[in-house]
Amino acid sequence: MKTATTQRVAVIDLGSNTARLVVMEATPGYAYRLVDEIREVVRLRQGMTQDGLSDDAIDRAFSTLRMFTRFCTSTRTDVILATATSAVRDAANGRAFIDKVQQDLDLTLRILDGEEEAFYGVIGALNEVPLDGGAVLDIGGGSAQLSRIQSGRSEVGSSLTLGSLALTERFVSKDPVSAKQVKSLEQEISRQLHTIPWIDTVRDSDLVGLGGTIRNLAKIETMRQKSPLNTLHGFLLTRDSLDASIDSFIELPLAKRQRIDGLSPDRADIILAGALVVRGVFETLGVDQLTISTGGLREGLFLEHFWEHLDYPVIDDVRRFSVLNLARIYGYQKDHANHVRHLAGRLFDQLLPLHDQGAQDRELLDAAALLHDLGTIIAYDGHHKHSQTLIHYNGLAGFSRREICLIALLTRFHRKGSPDIEGYESVLNKRDGKTLTYLAAILRMAEFLERGRNACVNDVITKWDDDALRITLVADEHPAVEIWETRRNALPLMESAFGRRVVLDSMAAPLD
Amino acid sequence: MKTATTQRVAVIDLGSNTARLVVMEATPGYAYRLVDEIREVVRLRQGMTQDGLSDDAIDRAFSTLRMFTRFCTSTRTDVILATATSAVRDAANGRAFIDKVQQDLDLTLRILDGEEEAFYGVIGALNEVPLDGGAVLDIGGGSAQLSRIQSGRSEVGSSLTLGSLALTERFVSKDPVSAKQVKSLEQEISRQLHTIPWIDTVRDSDLVGLGGTIRNLAKIETMRQKSPLNTLHGFLLTRDSLDASIDSFIELPLAKRQRIDGLSPDRADIILAGALVVRGVFETLGVDQLTISTGGLREGLFLEHFWEHLDYPVIDDVRRFSVLNLARIYGYQKDHANHVRHLAGRLFDQLLPLHDQGAQDRELLDAAALLHDLGTIIAYDGHHKHSQTLIHYNGLAGFSRREICLIALLTRFHRKGSPDIEGYESVLNKRDGKTLTYLAAILRMAEFLERGRNACVNDVITKWDDDALRITLVADEHPAVEIWETRRNALPLMESAFGRRVVLDSMAAPLD
Repeated sequence: MKTATTQRVAVIDLGSNTARLVVMEATPGYAYRLVDEIREVVRLRQGMTQDGLSDDAIDRAFSTLRMFTRFCTSTRTDVILATATSAVRDAANGRAFIDKVQQDLDLTLRILDGEEEAFYGVIGALNEVPLDGGAVLDIGGGSAQLSRIQSGRSEVGSSLTLGSLALTERFVSKDPVSAKQVKSLEQEISRQLHTIPWIDTVRDSDLVGLGGTIRNLAKIETMRQKSPLNTLHGFLLTRDSLDASIDSFIELPLAKRQRIDGLSPDRADIILAGALVVRGVFETLGVDQLTISTGGLREGLFLEHFWEHLDYPVIDDVRRFSVLNLARIYGYQKDHANHVRHLAGRLFDQLLPLHDQGAQDRELLDAAALLHDLGTIIAYDGHHKHSQTLIHYNGLAGFSRREICLIALLTRFHRKGSPDIEGYESVLNKRDGKTLTYLAAILRMAEFLERGRNACVNDVITKWDDDALRITLVADEHPAVEIWETRRNALPLMESAFGRRVVLDSMAAPLD
Repeated sequence: MKTATTQRVAVIDLGSNTARLVVMEATPGYAYRLVDEIREVVRLRQGMTQDGLSDDAIDRAFSTLRMFTRFCTSTRTDVILATATSAVRDAANGRAFIDKVQQDLDLTLRILDGEEEAFYGVIGALNEVPLDGGAVLDIGGGSAQLSRIQSGRSEVGSSLTLGSLALTERFVSKDPVSAKQVKSLEQEISRQLHTIPWIDTVRDSDLVGLGGTIRNLAKIETMRQKSPLNTLHGFLLTRDSLDASIDSFIELPLAKRQRIDGLSPDRADIILAGALVVRGVFETLGVDQLTISTGGLREGLFLEHFWEHLDYPVIDDVRRFSVLNLARIYGYQKDHANHVRHLAGRLFDQLLPLHDQGAQDRELLDAAALLHDLGTIIAYDGHHKHSQTLIHYNGLAGFSRREICLIALLTRFHRKGSPDIEGYESVLNKRDGKTLTYLAAILRMAEFLERGRNACVNDVITKWDDDALRITLVADEHPAVEIWETRRNALPLMESAFGRRVVLDSMAAPLD
């Protein structure tokens, strides 16, 4: 995706437990991808007193930041966005620490106040999960943020000392935790949540969750479900799943908790407190599920830069952008992909009375048409399967799990094979299988009508009766390659999907 | 890998059974990859009489070639290399057919005589399997070619009417085949092989095999073995495996043969004849294995163009080129990769008395150093695993299966994880596990010594006793990032591999 204006943008996030450097390769407003990451467990909050951060913690943070800045220099980073959150914010000597970092390392470390921290988390989340109104919950190590969203923007945010690490240090001393400690945790969580003045205004609303704790709770559930996707995009964390996880965290001692499938061993000690915060929010808001956002604070900081030219740093159509971004980072062939989209759309619209699929299905078809050749970056041989793998791996922001799976399957079946939802039973049902067949038939037809990759066929005219579907190709010259390839490769699936013979002819006469 | 001089090169191969168009994206002498392919079952030989090709067969071939040429035009192909083999060569009306193709389609179809056909197969094979002296066997549909190789060049080649399809049509009429028919086949194969005047000069020599029949026999064996690799590069087809396959082909009726794992259903009818040719060659030459070449006639035609600037169109160091080609098509970061190679080589050489690995292992380390970041083209997250997958998928010409697996595993463990040959037991043994650990430790050390991606560490000085290994970094300025990252990420594996504490220091003093 390298373009003339591609930048390396680093985000440095000095949290209470962990310091992270992430580097994005980005062409603002066009496309971005993660290209490097360094994670250091700094434990900045460890040993903190009313005098502030401990000398040891300051030394650890300082060394890490020095290393980060040198890394940025040596790898020629164009932009560095560096922030510190609750530990530095809460520390009596936080300001002095920031000054020393500025002076000695020439690094401007911005302290985010609670509301700013909430804001950036929301920006990260809203660029991933479309949410017009509702609430966003972000659980970190030191603090947790709850924000109210109105008209797709962060309207008000509150920061509470409900971080997983902070709560664990304060309330959990036994292994496994005692019932009494759980009770105290729950009471404290509920108490703090009720200090939010606007809490009642987000009751029963859509909830989005972010941060490592929440991602880990989702990951545990995907392992239980044997999800076909490698991404958490669009994952719904339900109350039932949360309850099951909490029960096992309470029951198991640390050593066994560390072996839970999907749980990061270095979170096993603090995951319970975070999970109880999620449940507290569910109960306080009266909801029973949240949508995972894999984007959070760091992504929000980055995206404010990436969308700087917009009025507000959230893209209006998250789905449209996530599809384009994936196509762009894998260097798609724009002309070919756009022409396949066009033809697929024309076929879908004209054949609507026959297939009766909805507008959302048309959007899936459009996304799959844009992404169908993604896998050629791996190899031409089997590229349909590589496209499927790449979509499984990356996911697509803004789409549900069901939709991501359908898009992946459409790319899988865009040139050969019998559309089938086998292996996707945890996400798709039989009705989806029918949708897949219709859409795959249309996509395959569009692909082979653009086999010569030169937009020779510019439109289709369809006409049918009970027995036959006639498709006349509108082309400037006789589309010999397209007719040949479509007959062999696309018509059998069209015929079985639409239950009719398909007759193909061309408006332009053969040249010879 | 797009460069200013990238071309689209099409090879059209009109065979006795199948017509194929393959398109390579290539920068001659630099890198190439397959980017498109169309395969049509034309059955040119079907219905052939002494008057030549039948009218129906000519019509089918003509339509297919017209489609191929239009495809080349519409997709803006720079070079077309088109050939016809035995069916056209043997047909009384072959020349007339070629003239008509020239006139009507403006396509120059070159008829390869038997020796030329053998030559191009050999060029395809020698660019993939290093062979200084020996024999190359190419089994097609109509004919089979055997060539003698001397000093890495095709010296003499003979074409026999031992194609799988031709033999099947002539000898096999029962399903399953009768013992008598097998006997006749074996006699005819032996008879024809003994007509080659130089046959005795290649007795007991190395044998390389190519063509769809031979690839399919290998594929069946990889399925039996549950090979970790998705490629046939470097595969050895043994007499035992061949005998087992032949037994099942003889025993099973066609319908059951078609369900053999790894066998293409559209080859099930002709595979036995081809397998008997291989066995006949084994027996005539007194050998009991052959190395598979996945490259053959089409690749040879393409490579003659790709290596046009060389004295002879075979690259001298097949291994070197295959590693570079893979790196280039996936857009590797040359400076970083080369510096990791350099440091890995320095460590390997200096630590030789401790690890005692051989020159071939050093070459594997070098290849893995060049390829270690290949997977970043898929995603930064988990890129070590993506590198492994890409090597499994593509293979590496010139390397054995064991070597390809070791290179893939080295990339897998270049940044994290405990080197382990689990899942590779069919190819690697415990001793290889030890090699893997040494090489992975060295590669990981080299990678983290180049963490800042700016060649800050330009050399290492090593010194050891029974207790400790001291590594002093030679750098122009204090390599803070590299020391930090190497300590955390690379030293634990170095210490366990070399059984000593590892002490890291730097020639340049810290700057602060």
